[in-house]
Amino acid sequence: MPTFTVYKGSSDGSIVKSSTTRPDLSGTQVLVRITASGVCGTDEHYRQADMALGHEGAGIVEDLGPAVKHLKPGDRVGWGYEHDNCGMCTMCLSGRDHFCPSREFYGFANLDQGSFASHAVWKEDWLFRIPDSISDTEAAPLMCGGATVFNALRFYGIKSTDRVGIMGVGGLGHLAIQFASKMGCDVVVFSGTDGKREEAVRLGAKEFVAMKGKGAEELREGIGRRLDVLLVTMSRQPDWSVMLPLMAPDSIIFPISISQDDLKVPYDYLLQWGVRIQGTVVAPRAVHRQMLEFAALHQIKPMINKFPLTQEGITNAMQTLKDGKMRYRGVLIPEE
Amino acid sequence: MPTFTVYKGSSDGSIVKSSTTRPDLSGTQVLVRITASGVCGTDEHYRQADMALGHEGAGIVEDLGPAVKHLKPGDRVGWGYEHDNCGMCTMCLSGRDHFCPSREFYGFANLDQGSFASHAVWKEDWLFRIPDSISDTEAAPLMCGGATVFNALRFYGIKSTDRVGIMGVGGLGHLAIQFASKMGCDVVVFSGTDGKREEAVRLGAKEFVAMKGKGAEELREGIGRRLDVLLVTMSRQPDWSVMLPLMAPDSIIFPISISQDDLKVPYDYLLQWGVRIQGTVVAPRAVHRQMLEFAALHQIKPMINKFPLTQEGITNAMQTLKDGKMRYRGVLIPEE
Repeated sequence: MPTFTVYKGSSDGSIVKSSTTRPDLSGTQVLVRITASGVCGTDEHYRQADMALGHEGAGIVEDLGPAVKHLKPGDRVGWGYEHDNCGMCTMCLSGRDHFCPSREFYGFANLDQGSFASHAVWKEDWLFRIPDSISDTEAAPLMCGGATVFNALRFYGIKSTDRVGIMGVGGLGHLAIQFASKMGCDVVVFSGTDGKREEAVRLGAKEFVAMKGKGAEELREGIGRRLDVLLVTMSRQPDWSVMLPLMAPDSIIFPISISQDDLKVPYDYLLQWGVRIQGTVVAPRAVHRQMLEFAALHQIKPMINKFPLTQEGITNAMQTLKDGKMRYRGVLIPEE
Repeated sequence: MPTFTVYKGSSDGSIVKSSTTRPDLSGTQVLVRITASGVCGTDEHYRQADMALGHEGAGIVEDLGPAVKHLKPGDRVGWGYEHDNCGMCTMCLSGRDHFCPSREFYGFANLDQGSFASHAVWKEDWLFRIPDSISDTEAAPLMCGGATVFNALRFYGIKSTDRVGIMGVGGLGHLAIQFASKMGCDVVVFSGTDGKREEAVRLGAKEFVAMKGKGAEELREGIGRRLDVLLVTMSRQPDWSVMLPLMAPDSIIFPISISQDDLKVPYDYLLQWGVRIQGTVVAPRAVHRQMLEFAALHQIKPMINKFPLTQEGITNAMQTLKDGKMRYRGVLIPEE
């Protein structure tokens, strides 16, 4: 049986080169040769699992199962965190396929497949065409990071007249600034220090707040018009008692940070001013597709650091991310 | 100057009979003779404050300021937690007057006025006509308790096809069961023991869950179809780690309980299944009015325990509430 290369996690956290059997393609399965893969914080999360890593893939269609309808060899496609859904439940039938109870998510299903690999086999349903104006390398980080922040803004009805706070300028944050800004929103960026001020403004921020050393009172007084929306995109939860008083009445907070801790927020302000805390994860397919079209239309592109798609390249990329030195998304590229 | 009777809190928690000067009515001010007042958990909260208590009022219009347009002497009216708003901010102009930054709330403004009183003076804007089919006594508990739970269901777009959990059968919960049931929702009631099962079913619940002694796993397995909506109406927060796994994807939780503690919920489930935690407080005027019309149309009425509107009656009513023995809303009635 033919095989292809995948890179897996392992119990001691080292990246292991391995292989997956290439199945005879059945039904709507599509074989993709990988040309780029983003590196996301969630990959770090699964680094000690015996599974193929990577979930921000881009590549070229190489072969088709017999029931494939829309794709053909040579098409440029990408995929993200979700690989399958049932297609028949209320969630699937109402444009919320990312909430299908039988959904297949990275880390929960298809553990022999990933985007840190030479190839992958996915169902056509969850492969997204990459618009012509976006390269494979640029497309990869949109497949999870881009979809996640765009979905928060799009699926939950954020308005162009909203003042949108974005906390954290990293893999997700630097895309969120661009999306929200191109949607016409008044974007305020919150970062630790002044280091990323210029870049944030260049990406579309109207205001930049360096938080370090500022007390809750000072922040509240400095903010001017309060926030209708807040996307929290850092790798940990913020001090919610500092952020909540910055929120306008009837506003919405998206806590997108990865966290093992409980969410702990001041109760009284939440009720008194009708603040909404909205859990959100990646995007349904309709929104994912709109994200790609919107990015193409407005030339929204990730800023990337390239690494070779090798054992060493993956290890280095993950270390760079862990050290907080990625500017702003790592992308793995196969060696020629 | 003429005065009227009010009952105030005091530092030792005893109820004090006092008086407020009746102003010469100006602008849109209206003098109301009080015929009924609900007793709410929030009154207990202010019991040690030097302020007039009570915020679920009903009565008869006795006199009008020169700019009053719609009301006339003899009209039956009620009022609740909010007394005024600016009328010009974005919140006011978009049907969200309960979130006006200059709003006047019970406990924060007009501390010389309350519904534990013989009379009150309020602006016409925040007095609501009581429908003919609802008595003053029945109307009073709708002015805060009714408005609060109806607003959660109405303002946030709950659908008739939703499965709605209501936690706690008390002043708010017993009204929420009726409202949600008459909206067509599949209502599941969560209570400590089986004690209120029959009553909950009679009020409209399709299912009743006695929680005591049931573990998280048992509850999750017993629930069947998960909840699209959860209203938490007890006097304290529940164990959120038990309740959250009962929620359907893309569902909404209203934590309405009064609580000094932070809100602390499991983070991962919230994100993975897109759960929304929605802070909410009373209702904007448009929704408050709809609540009264809906209650009249469907004969939704509070179940009440009557007490005399006297120092002793108030003290007894508040003790009954504190002891968890109110079935389900205390209403104070002036002695003849």
